[in-house]
Amino acid sequence: MPGLQSEKYGIVIKPNSNSAIDIALRVINILKKYNKEVLVEKESKENYNIIKDVGEFVIDHDPPEKIIVIGGDGTLLRAVMKEKTGNSIIMAIRAGKRGFLLDVEEYEVENRVYDFINNRYTLVEYPRLQLIFNGVNKDCALNDIVIFTSDGSLVRLEAYYNKDRVYNIDGDGVVISTTIGSTAYSLSAGGPIIDPRLNTIILTPLNPVQLHIRPVVFPINGVIDINIKEDSGEYYINIDGQEKVYSRSKSFLEVSLCDKPAKIARFRWWENYYERLFSRLLSYW
Amino acid sequence: MPGLQSEKYGIVIKPNSNSAIDIALRVINILKKYNKEVLVEKESKENYNIIKDVGEFVIDHDPPEKIIVIGGDGTLLRAVMKEKTGNSIIMAIRAGKRGFLLDVEEYEVENRVYDFINNRYTLVEYPRLQLIFNGVNKDCALNDIVIFTSDGSLVRLEAYYNKDRVYNIDGDGVVISTTIGSTAYSLSAGGPIIDPRLNTIILTPLNPVQLHIRPVVFPINGVIDINIKEDSGEYYINIDGQEKVYSRSKSFLEVSLCDKPAKIARFRWWENYYERLFSRLLSYW
Amino acid sequence: MPGLQSEKYGIVIKPNSNSAIDIALRVINILKKYNKEVLVEKESKENYNIIKDVGEFVIDHDPPEKIIVIGGDGTLLRAVMKEKTGNSIIMAIRAGKRGFLLDVEEYEVENRVYDFINNRYTLVEYPRLQLIFNGVNKDCALNDIVIFTSDGSLVRLEAYYNKDRVYNIDGDGVVISTTIGSTAYSLSAGGPIIDPRLNTIILTPLNPVQLHIRPVVFPINGVIDINIKEDSGEYYINIDGQEKVYSRSKSFLEVSLCDKPAKIARFRWWENYYERLFSRLLSYW
Amino acid sequence: MPGLQSEKYGIVIKPNSNSAIDIALRVINILKKYNKEVLVEKESKENYNIIKDVGEFVIDHDPPEKIIVIGGDGTLLRAVMKEKTGNSIIMAIRAGKRGFLLDVEEYEVENRVYDFINNRYTLVEYPRLQLIFNGVNKDCALNDIVIFTSDGSLVRLEAYYNKDRVYNIDGDGVVISTTIGSTAYSLSAGGPIIDPRLNTIILTPLNPVQLHIRPVVFPINGVIDINIKEDSGEYYINIDGQEKVYSRSKSFLEVSLCDKPAKIARFRWWENYYERLFSRLLSYW
Repeated sequence: MPGLQSEKYGIVIKPNSNSAIDIALRVINILKKYNKEVLVEKESKENYNIIKDVGEFVIDHDPPEKIIVIGGDGTLLRAVMKEKTGNSIIMAIRAGKRGFLLDVEEYEVENRVYDFINNRYTLVEYPRLQLIFNGVNKDCALNDIVIFTSDGSLVRLEAYYNKDRVYNIDGDGVVISTTIGSTAYSLSAGGPIIDPRLNTIILTPLNPVQLHIRPVVFPINGVIDINIKEDSGEYYINIDGQEKVYSRSKSFLEVSLCDKPAKIARFRWWENYYERLFSRLLSYW
Repeated sequence: MPGLQSEKYGIVIKPNSNSAIDIALRVINILKKYNKEVLVEKESKENYNIIKDVGEFVIDHDPPEKIIVIGGDGTLLRAVMKEKTGNSIIMAIRAGKRGFLLDVEEYEVENRVYDFINNRYTLVEYPRLQLIFNGVNKDCALNDIVIFTSDGSLVRLEAYYNKDRVYNIDGDGVVISTTIGSTAYSLSAGGPIIDPRLNTIILTPLNPVQLHIRPVVFPINGVIDINIKEDSGEYYINIDGQEKVYSRSKSFLEVSLCDKPAKIARFRWWENYYERLFSRLLSYW
Repeated sequence: MPGLQSEKYGIVIKPNSNSAIDIALRVINILKKYNKEVLVEKESKENYNIIKDVGEFVIDHDPPEKIIVIGGDGTLLRAVMKEKTGNSIIMAIRAGKRGFLLDVEEYEVENRVYDFINNRYTLVEYPRLQLIFNGVNKDCALNDIVIFTSDGSLVRLEAYYNKDRVYNIDGDGVVISTTIGSTAYSLSAGGPIIDPRLNTIILTPLNPVQLHIRPVVFPINGVIDINIKEDSGEYYINIDGQEKVYSRSKSFLEVSLCDKPAKIARFRWWENYYERLFSRLLSYW
Repeated sequence: MPGLQSEKYGIVIKPNSNSAIDIALRVINILKKYNKEVLVEKESKENYNIIKDVGEFVIDHDPPEKIIVIGGDGTLLRAVMKEKTGNSIIMAIRAGKRGFLLDVEEYEVENRVYDFINNRYTLVEYPRLQLIFNGVNKDCALNDIVIFTSDGSLVRLEAYYNKDRVYNIDGDGVVISTTIGSTAYSLSAGGPIIDPRLNTIILTPLNPVQLHIRPVVFPINGVIDINIKEDSGEYYINIDGQEKVYSRSKSFLEVSLCDKPAKIARFRWWENYYERLFSRLLSYW
């Protein structure tokens, strides 16, 4: 009888974080109380030997349909990247003061997990960016793809949108960001804040010698091409801060909409969005 | 017989400009050669007594269906604002080095006017912004609505999008810009460049004392509310640089999509868009 | 016997401020307790009819040797500007949350006034800027001289330092700031923070169309010349936010070191200077 | 007889540059014509086997009193860094379009070398910065000392001036620049332009998450301390782009005035300084 089969919940936990493991143990208890099967992600489990009596899962291979991520933006970005099926629905609990992408606060964990179990949430599908680097598909990015000098020498590149040349950048590199990534690294680099209801790709130059160039915001359904020039310095490409590719040669990058969005269960994403954003930004002091 | 009725063409000319009147005389000759009825806008005609043997029109009252604007961005913005019916199709010829909104260059006037006569152009409808100031509808803005200190004292306001508070601005004021206006005043004030295929409203704070706030880009189909506080300094509201309202009191502004877009005949708007943009921007030296 | 002659203390109070008048009454009591003669500035006295039984002084004509300013930056800037002799020593008490130039806090008023009476303070002489506008000397500026569009049209000017052309500015105008003014309007406009131990003049362009130009910091012992061009829009010149001159014509401004510095009694100017600066800056929210 | 002893001239040449080697051969001929002894720097000589019949020198060990550098900013920075005695006077010829630090243009090489031989130049002594990294003295920097993320993770540090805490930076790192370095990397990173007559150290944060912090300009005769925190990501320290030190641990950096300035022979450093600066900056396109 299908009704008797217990639903599986996966848990991903930020490493080396007292507050993350504390929250995780609370979450495990709640799930068990409601007779849910709890699986902890293999790496997370290995980080905390306090976790016992629960199964494990490998996120790259067999992710459960519902995953609860506990930690900061990095933990969420890694989970979203490694969950390749694109089918899992992710709930995001913030542990620690940073992490704007995670909307569930520590004090409300019980209520929100209960809501998650009972499917009382808004499913938000976040567009991601697909990078093709020299012809090879890379993992999709939820926040940004960064081309960055690896030794401080000048990265030289040309940026195009839909085959129309935008400008040359000679500098530390460039950020190619999603709308949701606009409040992350791109913002520190001088990029604008984009309202999450607008689907965009943002090009933010990094410390360019061309003093007149500015960030540009494009519709997401186009293609960014980046030609890294022959005389460029060494660089690496950083996908969501999770995956790096080093190179020193002339290269071609093509960035466009990823066919699998990130599926995140939100409980109050829109409530006081900007208040929450700026209070999070001002927590850096 | 309708076929015999000659089509009417209106002409609007930047005042005090040798190059604008030169181009205008060429345009009048071309139109006459093709047996079109030429009407010069009343004010433009009064500025140049060299214009003879043509009729005139008052742009606020009876604009022809096709209008040719010759001048800079200001000439175009004024014509679009005064043409209240929203039915006229406007062709834009640049006279002078500035004026990125005008895509027809002096050297190609003959060919493009011929194309315009023969309806060989792309009709681009640019969204505009409608301001309601303390309950009163104002003229729609193609580029931007600016709230600006009138005496150097601090303008204090709160900005909202769809009733969600974005942030307070205490400074010289704020720019509320369309996508097409993103390359005008908003850009000088630190705003991003928005690709013309994306329909947005941009909020760009003007020299705010809040050092952490940044420009924000919103979808155009929402509502910006600005509450100017009781303790704000004196200010004026500037619509496309064409129309000013002075005030010193607490006020409410509501900005949303205007129901009449600007209709502009484009001949190569997309061809090398960014190359043309940056070469225009670098012409300021 | 000179020893019996009572020393005179002038008091300047921010208008319409409950906290400023409260502090002022406390200060008057302290001074009377120590048998000092208290004079309240004529305008300040007229603003508050609660002030009785004290004499008054006109700051432009006969300023006492010691003046206590109570209010915000504006109150201090006005007092310094109007005290033309350059002989008075000014103590500055902050009333209200803003006002970085004023270093005495409300809670310590008794102790600091007592120190002031007993000459236990550091006398800091702040360089000021002297503007000559079309050949006419203006009042000296402690913070800044701002050239600013009066109607939103483009101000066009050329800036020189020691007769060497720096750059053209086409925009809202320019800020010419002292070191101490670097944390005021210039900072909001994108200028750098200058350590108070460095004597400088800072040129900060205001929203220029020339996207490549940047603030420039010069030694204070040179001369800034500004030529406002014939085709400039209307503008005004604003000295420390206290004094405005409107103009629409071609003009010449010469800015150099004022021969009379501002003399301010400081009690802990250097103690945690940057901590205090940023905590003041972050109080705008 | 001392009068008969021929004066020695050292030559340093940018590698892999047709225009640099062309100029170098011209310079060698001129020097020989005037009976000067020409020595080419060992590394430069090894790069170009076309150079014959001249001696060589090792710049770190026995630099001649007069050195002619031919190339870009990097060539000059390297020569100044490696010339440890601080006694050599350096003439700087620009080969290629970049290189603002080099004031002699290709077309005037003959005249300026002749002037250099005859001591007709202005000797400008540029202050440099001395870094002590975890207690160890490093080579002095003419332009800047940069602390920079080596893997894209957040560098976390605290900056002090004369033991007064300025602010925390969590970001890509920080630039600590001289006045002359203010027009190099610091400028791309948002720092101000400092007039060369002002002796300063500039702190320019690199893409900080603290959105409210700004570049700060200090007098050069003080000490910058940087504490890199225990939880910082990996980073390297880059001195004038010539020398790198990698680290991942908690570190202390102390930066102060180097006891040996760079001695450069200038021929028209002040002539149209800002015109030349901005025309060089606008050559990046």
